[in-house]
Amino acid sequence: MIDELINQILLKKNPTVAGLDTRCEYIPQFILEKYAKPGSGFEGAANAIFEFNKEIIDAIYDLVPAVKIQNAYYESYGIPGIEVFKLTCSYAKSKGLIVIADVKRNDIGPTAQAYSAAFLGETQLPYSKAKAFDADFATITPYLGIDGVKPFIDDCIKFRKGIFILVKTSNPSSGDLQDIQTDRGKVYEIVAKKVKEWGNGLIGKNGYSSIGAVVGATYPQQLSEIRGIMPQVFILIPGYGAQGAGGQDIIGGFCDDGLGAIVNASRSIICAWQTVNSNQQNFALAARNEVIRMKHEIDTALKTAKVRAW
Amino acid sequence: MIDELINQILLKKNPTVAGLDTRCEYIPQFILEKYAKPGSGFEGAANAIFEFNKEIIDAIYDLVPAVKIQNAYYESYGIPGIEVFKLTCSYAKSKGLIVIADVKRNDIGPTAQAYSAAFLGETQLPYSKAKAFDADFATITPYLGIDGVKPFIDDCIKFRKGIFILVKTSNPSSGDLQDIQTDRGKVYEIVAKKVKEWGNGLIGKNGYSSIGAVVGATYPQQLSEIRGIMPQVFILIPGYGAQGAGGQDIIGGFCDDGLGAIVNASRSIICAWQTVNSNQQNFALAARNEVIRMKHEIDTALKTAKVRAW
Repeated sequence: MIDELINQILLKKNPTVAGLDTRCEYIPQFILEKYAKPGSGFEGAANAIFEFNKEIIDAIYDLVPAVKIQNAYYESYGIPGIEVFKLTCSYAKSKGLIVIADVKRNDIGPTAQAYSAAFLGETQLPYSKAKAFDADFATITPYLGIDGVKPFIDDCIKFRKGIFILVKTSNPSSGDLQDIQTDRGKVYEIVAKKVKEWGNGLIGKNGYSSIGAVVGATYPQQLSEIRGIMPQVFILIPGYGAQGAGGQDIIGGFCDDGLGAIVNASRSIICAWQTVNSNQQNFALAARNEVIRMKHEIDTALKTAKVRAW
Repeated sequence: MIDELINQILLKKNPTVAGLDTRCEYIPQFILEKYAKPGSGFEGAANAIFEFNKEIIDAIYDLVPAVKIQNAYYESYGIPGIEVFKLTCSYAKSKGLIVIADVKRNDIGPTAQAYSAAFLGETQLPYSKAKAFDADFATITPYLGIDGVKPFIDDCIKFRKGIFILVKTSNPSSGDLQDIQTDRGKVYEIVAKKVKEWGNGLIGKNGYSSIGAVVGATYPQQLSEIRGIMPQVFILIPGYGAQGAGGQDIIGGFCDDGLGAIVNASRSIICAWQTVNSNQQNFALAARNEVIRMKHEIDTALKTAKVRAW
């Protein structure tokens, strides 16, 4: 799956991913008024979210290679929210986008297998097999070690999928656990080495593995350092935009071939209509304009650093 | 919420929790034939799972204080599976059971807040608030540090709920990351200290915090050690039964007052009908008999160790 992602990046000349972290607070009033009427509960809110997502996707699918759909927001709207998570996955795929299910799942072996079946693989039913969410990539946590990761790797091989494993997250307290010094380096360095090792068997034709890593743009020094530790691991970089990181902060995540990373922005794109001087009716255009601005900023940063792939 | 759990433990004289890790492979053929007919897809499988869960709950609710519902299996059956996860939560609560949503969620602050809203708290809609799953406890991962845990703690206070944070998991490779030696002890020891610290403000009338920990029975030595590090933290102990641990292995998790821990068994209970010499029609009775056997084994172990609370 990493080759499909790279193809899309080269096609769109844009190593970014738009994060659909949609919640009612981010949706223009005129959509809420139409769908999320008083008494409509989760159902109404979920319908508003899907309408918003569709318009955002329609406005940006020709510019970005992928979308990242943050499961937490959809789960907070109950079953109707989770239905819209699934519908959004399908709609984005129908527009040729790569879909990253940002679910940060994991568990012990047999249970991790069930999560992997849900998001990447398929589930055995008494008389057939069926796919629950069928994303292209999923994000997963490393705390349980290899036997929680192995079922996902197996499905990456079997179903041509990919995963991004949390290494160094973008939040202020990520250091609480990840930065602890050990006799073999910091915890995130050890995890980075493990991700490299776990992905060795899944290197695609562009030289990158379908077993990727999450490293936040809010820690640019660690990003460069981790890039050095795992040269063939593709990095999903959150933290750009609303979390504070800019074009210069993400350069360290890229390799000399101008590939190796994809930069996520969520709120700065989907909430662009709230910050720029635009009519709320033009929320999708505001998102598109922010995607273009971000593309230009990252393109300039890559060009300046002489690591642009196109 | 920890006091409600302890009340139930004292009432039932049983510090165990039955794990509803239900999947089609664990369900007797006569139920599958009735509900999960050819062509019935996820819907049929989910209906079979709910029927099975209801009968298991009916057979054991007078014996156990709580059920732990493993979200991964339900997600692997798509939206109908997740509906049954929710229905099972409600049904167990209607029988007076404490419900632990085993979801192992977490993310960066604002996103963790959405997960917490989904499983413990409530979601703000444009004109009202609503609860998605409304469990009593949820399991969460610690890899992102305190700002991923804080929203859950806030909801534990606001909605009288509890969480169990992964400290030392029961799987064979849990040591990959958790056992790494640092200059401040092993990683799991550091996490144990953090769980203790994070839960200080939520100590109930029995002296235990609503911020608990997960420590596997498959590592009895570490269980005793972790018990010592965090005396007021309630421990959810998986790994008993199908994963290999027995009555002696869990003793170290208990405090001198005979409380401080709750032992989970899943497959050994719900799949008891597959291993004992019983008619598949009697699957619920087989589960009940295994719950009684397990209760007796743990009771004897606690009595021998002179730490029984009743």
